[in-house]
Amino acid sequence: MDIIKVGIITASDRASKGIYDDISGVAIIDTMKDYLKNEFEQFYRCIPDEQDVIEKTIIELQELGCDLIVTTGGTGPAPRDVTPEATENVCEKMLPGFGELMRQVSLQYVPTAILSRQSAGIRGKSLIINLPGKPKSIRECLDAVFPAVPYCVDLIGGNYIECNEEIIKVFRPKK
Amino acid sequence: MDIIKVGIITASDRASKGIYDDISGVAIIDTMKDYLKNEFEQFYRCIPDEQDVIEKTIIELQELGCDLIVTTGGTGPAPRDVTPEATENVCEKMLPGFGELMRQVSLQYVPTAILSRQSAGIRGKSLIINLPGKPKSIRECLDAVFPAVPYCVDLIGGNYIECNEEIIKVFRPKK
Amino acid sequence: MDIIKVGIITASDRASKGIYDDISGVAIIDTMKDYLKNEFEQFYRCIPDEQDVIEKTIIELQELGCDLIVTTGGTGPAPRDVTPEATENVCEKMLPGFGELMRQVSLQYVPTAILSRQSAGIRGKSLIINLPGKPKSIRECLDAVFPAVPYCVDLIGGNYIECNEEIIKVFRPKK
Repeated sequence: MDIIKVGIITASDRASKGIYDDISGVAIIDTMKDYLKNEFEQFYRCIPDEQDVIEKTIIELQELGCDLIVTTGGTGPAPRDVTPEATENVCEKMLPGFGELMRQVSLQYVPTAILSRQSAGIRGKSLIINLPGKPKSIRECLDAVFPAVPYCVDLIGGNYIECNEEIIKVFRPKK
Repeated sequence: MDIIKVGIITASDRASKGIYDDISGVAIIDTMKDYLKNEFEQFYRCIPDEQDVIEKTIIELQELGCDLIVTTGGTGPAPRDVTPEATENVCEKMLPGFGELMRQVSLQYVPTAILSRQSAGIRGKSLIINLPGKPKSIRECLDAVFPAVPYCVDLIGGNYIECNEEIIKVFRPKK
Repeated sequence: MDIIKVGIITASDRASKGIYDDISGVAIIDTMKDYLKNEFEQFYRCIPDEQDVIEKTIIELQELGCDLIVTTGGTGPAPRDVTPEATENVCEKMLPGFGELMRQVSLQYVPTAILSRQSAGIRGKSLIINLPGKPKSIRECLDAVFPAVPYCVDLIGGNYIECNEEIIKVFRPKK
């Protein structure tokens, strides 16, 4: 089984200063441990909500060979929320279906889901997905989109991802 | 309670020439009266479907301190429909979730809802929302997205909006 | 009844080289025959996944007077998938509601529907719609969006499209 590489980026002024613990990053790592059958190397970065820092960090993790880069935080309408802009700036392709589905899922819980600008995109052989900031919403969003992630990573030339089927049902269309 | 400022822009070649009455603008104002508990000042503009005029009017209303600017008209596929372009040009951030939800709601009534390019965005401390042209659709769209509006305006530094809860249920997530 | 013009573009490296038959293009033509009451002229092009070739072909078919131009293929996340980029580059307006609805419909069948970047847009008097590559998905997507197509073509100044109502229910709002 391929060893895969997962990048986790927490964009948060306060978490990056140590004002509070980054429970969002932890939630992503825990979810990956639940989902993935492959052994995986994790690359974790906790950084401030600065667009250029986020961009450089995505590029760094892509160049390190991450198959999947997941961000948390900075997707709202506030002036310091710039994660989607950073993502779009460094991606070659955007995948609007991810954001649409994540907002639809979150809308079942909170009407403010429409304020989220989260999206996903491709840079080289990395799939980048923006997630919300709250651990509960992170899991809801990942549960919704992850079934399509392994096939997407196949298509862009990344490693072959396998999942614990009793936890998350991966789908690969037959040729 | 904060006094809030609401901008209403009707983009319509014919209404702006007085060829017919602007029932769309009236529908928006009536809905605001229904929804809002706050005293509110209204800034109403009825203008032709000219992109530069729409852009200047949004900027003017934002500079006058509007917490919310609502447009009606000009969101379809016809050559003179340019309200979304004008909105995107003057906004610092776009919020695609508004358009997605409004189209989804309108789709329950008419299959042509997918022709609408309506969206929402942020300029300074103003939230700008594009609505359709027909009074019935205006209300349906506002009923769908307004629960998220007060929290959005909080996040961008605007006034604190309160609503008549028996008419529209506002949602603010707990910190 | 107006004679209408329909352009069909298959973007596929392998089909354009004759490595396999273009069953996708055939599926579109068959669907048009099912749907349309009007006599229609078809303009069929099978081309490689090259962005500039796709752009030139869309422009060519628009200049030939096509009311509707339908593409198939090249909407995924892979490096050679460039049909949405080509479409956006030559369109004056994009209609995001088409892509949203098509992905939502396809999601009922496959979780990988979120990987599709298909959209629709306007160039001159032509409506351009990106469809997926598989015949089954092509029909599902067309069944979902086609009820709005004739009215859209009306709005952009194209010919008056009429459909076999027992097969597809067209909707034109009353003025």
